[in-house]
Amino acid sequence: MPSTTGPMLETYPKSINLDRAKLAATVDALNDCAQACTACADACLSEDMVAELTKCIRTNLDCADICATTARVLSRHTGYDATISRTLLEACATACRSCGDECAAHADKHEHCRICAEACRACEQRCRDLLATIS
Amino acid sequence: MPSTTGPMLETYPKSINLDRAKLAATVDALNDCAQACTACADACLSEDMVAELTKCIRTNLDCADICATTARVLSRHTGYDATISRTLLEACATACRSCGDECAAHADKHEHCRICAEACRACEQRCRDLLATIS
Amino acid sequence: MPSTTGPMLETYPKSINLDRAKLAATVDALNDCAQACTACADACLSEDMVAELTKCIRTNLDCADICATTARVLSRHTGYDATISRTLLEACATACRSCGDECAAHADKHEHCRICAEACRACEQRCRDLLATIS
Amino acid sequence: MPSTTGPMLETYPKSINLDRAKLAATVDALNDCAQACTACADACLSEDMVAELTKCIRTNLDCADICATTARVLSRHTGYDATISRTLLEACATACRSCGDECAAHADKHEHCRICAEACRACEQRCRDLLATIS
Repeated sequence: MPSTTGPMLETYPKSINLDRAKLAATVDALNDCAQACTACADACLSEDMVAELTKCIRTNLDCADICATTARVLSRHTGYDATISRTLLEACATACRSCGDECAAHADKHEHCRICAEACRACEQRCRDLLATIS
Repeated sequence: MPSTTGPMLETYPKSINLDRAKLAATVDALNDCAQACTACADACLSEDMVAELTKCIRTNLDCADICATTARVLSRHTGYDATISRTLLEACATACRSCGDECAAHADKHEHCRICAEACRACEQRCRDLLATIS
Repeated sequence: MPSTTGPMLETYPKSINLDRAKLAATVDALNDCAQACTACADACLSEDMVAELTKCIRTNLDCADICATTARVLSRHTGYDATISRTLLEACATACRSCGDECAAHADKHEHCRICAEACRACEQRCRDLLATIS
Repeated sequence: MPSTTGPMLETYPKSINLDRAKLAATVDALNDCAQACTACADACLSEDMVAELTKCIRTNLDCADICATTARVLSRHTGYDATISRTLLEACATACRSCGDECAAHADKHEHCRICAEACRACEQRCRDLLATIS
């Protein structure tokens, strides 16, 4: 199922200060990362060695919440305020970096951590690319 | 970008009481609908005729929140409780029906409402299909 | 710090179909329960016996998400739709019951579970009381 | 109803790197601000002059999402990562400043904007006070 993020962006009735294709790709990466982190936290919770994964679960929960909120803020263009987008993208890239590092440390033992680490890396990159375009 | 919902579901280490393919399709539809509703609310807010779209904006906000929460609950399988999934899916299908109807009423004037109505219809159908498999 | 929920409700410029005092009390209970569940999930995650608390953590996460979303939906009155409020309150009462039961089972060992169980019970009661007034 | 944030914090089984009283006050301010912003957005949507309040509604929605997420992140202490807390608090203080300014501009006409502006100012101050203690 192709994402409706791009088509919806095209229908926004006023001007948008950011590149629409780059914006859509970032929002899709944020939603994908949020979903991967929510699923990874739950998969970790069902591993027999859950006691070794508690930091991973916590970072997953933070990253899921922050990515979901960032996707929402970036999906709003009415009364745009660059300072909110910029500081939130910085926090989100930080969370993705932290969660990507933590999941990567368990990637050889848990496939869900490997996939989730990739989603975090991709999302962090999208956030930093978009940040570079916000003056 | 293909969604990681399905691949992540495959890595869950214990058994899941629901059909994994059906579950992944529902979660993807929920995330897509949540995203469409968030974008539609903001696009409505930027229309010159915003005063005629206030009920649409409100229903979009409700539907976005409920779909996002339902996607999260359906992405957790540890300590599964069918009664939570069932009642939440019923609330979610209700919200999608309501938002789909409201957006459809504006679909001829606003392309964002037309796309959002489609996302709501598709999501409602996925929720009802999954509900039918939960005893 | 007294909650601003009640004072904000008083400023809503149009009519509201529900009892404002009952509504404010329900929203406060929902926000309190969401906060308790988020904190309880994290406290469980830091217990040495985390492996015995995985179902509790999962139910806490569900209950936090559902209560937070229900508080938001009940805080919107523009274009009110009783069917959304009713089905969502039913799902929320179900989640509070489930989480209250699960936390109560650990209440003698973990004080965070005891406090959280109380917040869930109080919230479930508020949801059911409000439900009884929605025709 | 007194908040359970403080009592729950007291039950956390491991050490916390921040002052617990200051932390509880910040989380309460964040939840209160999130609630005020959600209610203010809806009250604005029901004003006859909604067309003049669209930027206020948008900023309310952003501030509600960011405060809710920040409250969650600050309520987790397992595997604490100061860089996530710090950057998110900065984004949150920015959003509260922006929303407080916008609501203050409408405070003489709309009581919900006046109350919401106060909640935003109080929350911004709590975020900055806590930030000052995070090295």
